[in-house]
Amino acid sequence: MHETDGLRAGPASQQGMRRANLALVLGVIARAPRSRAEVAADTGLTRAAVSSLAEELIAAGLVVEEGPAAPSGKVGRPGTALGLNPQGPGGLGAEIGVEHLGACVVDLRGEVRAWRRQEIRNRGRRPAAVLADLAELLRAAAVEAGLRPAGLTLAVPGLVGDGGGQLQRAANLGWQDVPVTAELRLALRAAGAGQLAELPIDADNEANLGGLAELWLGGAPEHFLHVSAEAGVGAAIVVGGRLLRGARGYAGELGHVPVRPDGPPCACGAHGCLEQYAGEAAVLRAAGLEGIRGDWVALLAERAEAGDEEVRAALAGAGSALGIASAGAVNLLDPAEVVLGGGYARLAPWLLGAMRAELAARVTVRPWTDERLTVSRLGRRGPLLGAAVGVVRAIVADPGRLDV
Amino acid sequence: MHETDGLRAGPASQQGMRRANLALVLGVIARAPRSRAEVAADTGLTRAAVSSLAEELIAAGLVVEEGPAAPSGKVGRPGTALGLNPQGPGGLGAEIGVEHLGACVVDLRGEVRAWRRQEIRNRGRRPAAVLADLAELLRAAAVEAGLRPAGLTLAVPGLVGDGGGQLQRAANLGWQDVPVTAELRLALRAAGAGQLAELPIDADNEANLGGLAELWLGGAPEHFLHVSAEAGVGAAIVVGGRLLRGARGYAGELGHVPVRPDGPPCACGAHGCLEQYAGEAAVLRAAGLEGIRGDWVALLAERAEAGDEEVRAALAGAGSALGIASAGAVNLLDPAEVVLGGGYARLAPWLLGAMRAELAARVTVRPWTDERLTVSRLGRRGPLLGAAVGVVRAIVADPGRLDV
Repeated sequence: MHETDGLRAGPASQQGMRRANLALVLGVIARAPRSRAEVAADTGLTRAAVSSLAEELIAAGLVVEEGPAAPSGKVGRPGTALGLNPQGPGGLGAEIGVEHLGACVVDLRGEVRAWRRQEIRNRGRRPAAVLADLAELLRAAAVEAGLRPAGLTLAVPGLVGDGGGQLQRAANLGWQDVPVTAELRLALRAAGAGQLAELPIDADNEANLGGLAELWLGGAPEHFLHVSAEAGVGAAIVVGGRLLRGARGYAGELGHVPVRPDGPPCACGAHGCLEQYAGEAAVLRAAGLEGIRGDWVALLAERAEAGDEEVRAALAGAGSALGIASAGAVNLLDPAEVVLGGGYARLAPWLLGAMRAELAARVTVRPWTDERLTVSRLGRRGPLLGAAVGVVRAIVADPGRLDV
Repeated sequence: MHETDGLRAGPASQQGMRRANLALVLGVIARAPRSRAEVAADTGLTRAAVSSLAEELIAAGLVVEEGPAAPSGKVGRPGTALGLNPQGPGGLGAEIGVEHLGACVVDLRGEVRAWRRQEIRNRGRRPAAVLADLAELLRAAAVEAGLRPAGLTLAVPGLVGDGGGQLQRAANLGWQDVPVTAELRLALRAAGAGQLAELPIDADNEANLGGLAELWLGGAPEHFLHVSAEAGVGAAIVVGGRLLRGARGYAGELGHVPVRPDGPPCACGAHGCLEQYAGEAAVLRAAGLEGIRGDWVALLAERAEAGDEEVRAALAGAGSALGIASAGAVNLLDPAEVVLGGGYARLAPWLLGAMRAELAARVTVRPWTDERLTVSRLGRRGPLLGAAVGVVRAIVADPGRLDV
């Protein structure tokens, strides 16, 4: 006797099933344009069910008919291919950096439709002033893209606990306990972007979003460690295709892993943290460029390219410290790859040698090969891309959230 | 229009549903004895379905009638409570230590029904000789318990990759690339324990199994880091109630996280690994007891209790190194707790002070409170308990695997 009838099927489970099926169909279409027949074959749903679900997705503006599908090798008419609607809802990304602001819009396919970056020294500025500038940038990006945004995610250079919304600490901005999503909403309203102010707004650490961008767009494997720098040093740990956030949402603080326990004092109160060897201030100091203004990554890259030995030595020192801390992380986490991202991607030519040497010497489960340390193609674009793409990925994963 | 009928329901999904419902019912009964009516209320299944599923579980020997259920406050006869069958299939655990062997049997409820430990110096012995001794111990434990075992898991002090079965490296035994489950099967046959030789046999790292024991039996939270010692130093990382195994199954090598990058050379080829400060050989050396034989944990604990200052200083040094490495891991992983287990649990009184001081100074997201460093109640019993209990938990999670 089979017990399939034992479950009390109620309205809740029927709605849940319809929502799951919408997601199933949209997920197949998102991987590549597909005819209704192909969607039915891929999902195990009946053709009638697929047609009905597709109508709903088309009516919601998520899917469009793209013309004849590629020949499938089967008998019969090929049917029309269904694809994600490039004029459908978009994802809005925002970024607060220590030396810049960013805004971008991607469409449902993840294509960038607007990209704005403003160089501006935010260190020590009041949150309200920074968020006012950011709101202007977002408004302009949204107008340029011309899509109906479905949500906004803000990348910040600091700690955001679980539940989002609250920026606990951003040492390099001098900010503490800022309700950053609520303040951004106010700033958007004040900037005359009332429509954007009504969106779901989320905030996340820039290193987390950079890591997710690497997973979604950068071709990273299911298990990897993403090591990145802006002003601080951050990491994203991806395990089985999911970001490891930890008990309170604070995982990934590679910048405060001890490299030399009796090393220089760190702003965090400890000694010899990675940030004291590979963070912006430490590298500039080692290069004899302490206190210099502007884009430190571009500056160091230019000088290193020009053959500046002091800068090259400073970067090798940073690479060595990055290798020591990363080797510890590899021994703990056994990732398939370590991806060097953010500002480090641009500086990689002068970091990689020393970093590889430390990894080769210290990773305990061998073989560890140099190829497992890779350089991000997204680089500093990662966090902003991750913020925007995360919004559209959430729609594709569960179109029912849009009230289809 | 609802699309619940769109899924092609076939025989496969009906069998899957029945199997899932068996697991659902057994899971409720495993938490606490329950009447059929209570099981129906807890699961949302109909009473008829619960009765039918319960009959199958009883026929399979997994469930027994325990007499009248506790009064539920509802009208009507209370019904008979269903509980896990203490005479049902059991879980067999085995352990190869550097200085001991272990075997244990637990029943479906997780109660220990047989526990054997043999002190024996395995370092440098041939695997076949060690496994022959272990097979004898397992046979004796199985006879004592008198249960029909459903599986066997072996805890080993070394690296076991994904897919199990192969012990890649156990430095403290001097073993490399040993097909340990296949050899144990041969040894069981040779020992006249043919029934045990037919069981599914799995192998896992002792630190992983100790961490799982902490999760299942020790009251650890969903996110924690379990730090343990036998001859080496190991860790288990539990994230969201699941063991983090990494890309190849080698996660948790805390013993080879660099504490002082220019520190003493390690057998792994690196310098200044945690094991060089907190492993057996390092602590004995620091205590002036290098080369001593026998149970190092018991010896150090006795001397420290007796007030031996050299031993106390050596343990404080180990605690400091454990604190430095754990602080790095906490910054990376954001666990809710660090649990000190294995041999360290017994040595905790002399480790905790220095370890707490380093954690307090180096954990970057505060507050970090001393209470978040806890001591395992299971101690060195953890890995063997974890091995055996894992077998019965797998049955309860999916009784269908037993061909119910």
